[in-house]
Amino acid sequence: MRIDILTVVPELLESPFNHSIIKRGKEKGLVEIHVHNIRDFSTDKHKRTDDYAFSGGAGMVMTIQPIEAAIEHLKAQRHYDEIIYTSPDGEQFTQGIANQLSLKGNLMILCGHYKGVDQRVREHLVTREISIGDYVLTGGELAAAVMADSIVRLIPGVISDETSALTDSFQDNLLSPPVYTRPADYKGWKVPHVLISGNDRKINEWKEKQAYERTKQLRPDLLKD
Amino acid sequence: MRIDILTVVPELLESPFNHSIIKRGKEKGLVEIHVHNIRDFSTDKHKRTDDYAFSGGAGMVMTIQPIEAAIEHLKAQRHYDEIIYTSPDGEQFTQGIANQLSLKGNLMILCGHYKGVDQRVREHLVTREISIGDYVLTGGELAAAVMADSIVRLIPGVISDETSALTDSFQDNLLSPPVYTRPADYKGWKVPHVLISGNDRKINEWKEKQAYERTKQLRPDLLKD
Repeated sequence: MRIDILTVVPELLESPFNHSIIKRGKEKGLVEIHVHNIRDFSTDKHKRTDDYAFSGGAGMVMTIQPIEAAIEHLKAQRHYDEIIYTSPDGEQFTQGIANQLSLKGNLMILCGHYKGVDQRVREHLVTREISIGDYVLTGGELAAAVMADSIVRLIPGVISDETSALTDSFQDNLLSPPVYTRPADYKGWKVPHVLISGNDRKINEWKEKQAYERTKQLRPDLLKD
Repeated sequence: MRIDILTVVPELLESPFNHSIIKRGKEKGLVEIHVHNIRDFSTDKHKRTDDYAFSGGAGMVMTIQPIEAAIEHLKAQRHYDEIIYTSPDGEQFTQGIANQLSLKGNLMILCGHYKGVDQRVREHLVTREISIGDYVLTGGELAAAVMADSIVRLIPGVISDETSALTDSFQDNLLSPPVYTRPADYKGWKVPHVLISGNDRKINEWKEKQAYERTKQLRPDLLKD
């Protein structure tokens, strides 16, 4: 898989993409991530990428020219399955969308900044608008990092133990059961007795029951799907 | 405001906290962000911070000792309004929670990694569990960065033009109207005529109508609140 990210603040994405799971996916040759500076595509003599909004009001708007040039430059080199714009009013990102996108070949993610991009970019140049949640960020860069992380870790081989990703929350519409590790007694706080019983059948029953009970209590909406 | 972040991969957070809006908030003296390596608090001779799960199964679990030591070390120095654990089964992070947390003095955010923390940490040491969305990340670091970004930008003075944050999506339960900037005609794609009419009353009417129509179409759930 290849992910191309278009941004006006590429330095923001350095550490998320050079550490942790994404680094591992890159080292194993399973994923390529390329971060492009939209500014490099600006034909403005000061390399500007934003301008005042036509409607007045506070906040700058990202201009269409450098974004279109960057997208066309990449599209001329390969086919993209999706050109995603990160926006708080987009479709809500979920584990289901992460699964779906993890099967694609080439993705492009355009990060909005300031008040967002000129609406014509959204109408004519992107194929999908995705939000990582109902809150506003300074820019789409962290949203792109979040999406890339959740997608890349699902690519077979990126996480060393694949069953680890399969038992995550949401993969079966249930939250994970609680997890415990040593010591069994920490300052009087003990792990549930069943977990140190050595009885695998009982342990599995306990885990299934906990997953169901936690989901029912914390996220009953997941059980309805 | 002060935000302390506890993590086993502090390097992941370098660029998000040293660029963009968070950097500006730090430079203006409006926010302090301190990233702590949980490993530094481990009493294990190899400075380990994770161990196998008691229940068996794939994935490592973060042990309680170094986390408790880190939290107690910080709590001994100041009062924390909230000690937040980032978890996909926590309360959903929203703009409302960002607003609420932006008024606090000291926040601590504990980032889960691997299969998460020993459940006793969640039962005894944190005050709140927050999820940034229904998807699984490699760790809570990006979730902490997302929360910090959305909170810090709401602190008065961090964004130069405060009205910019006030007109963001969600602040009034409406999505933002579309934005446009120059040129008015880009390769035949034109901005709506009203925006270049110079008629402020009509422009404001158009913006309100667009915000309402977009919300009704894309996120009718927001209108019900």
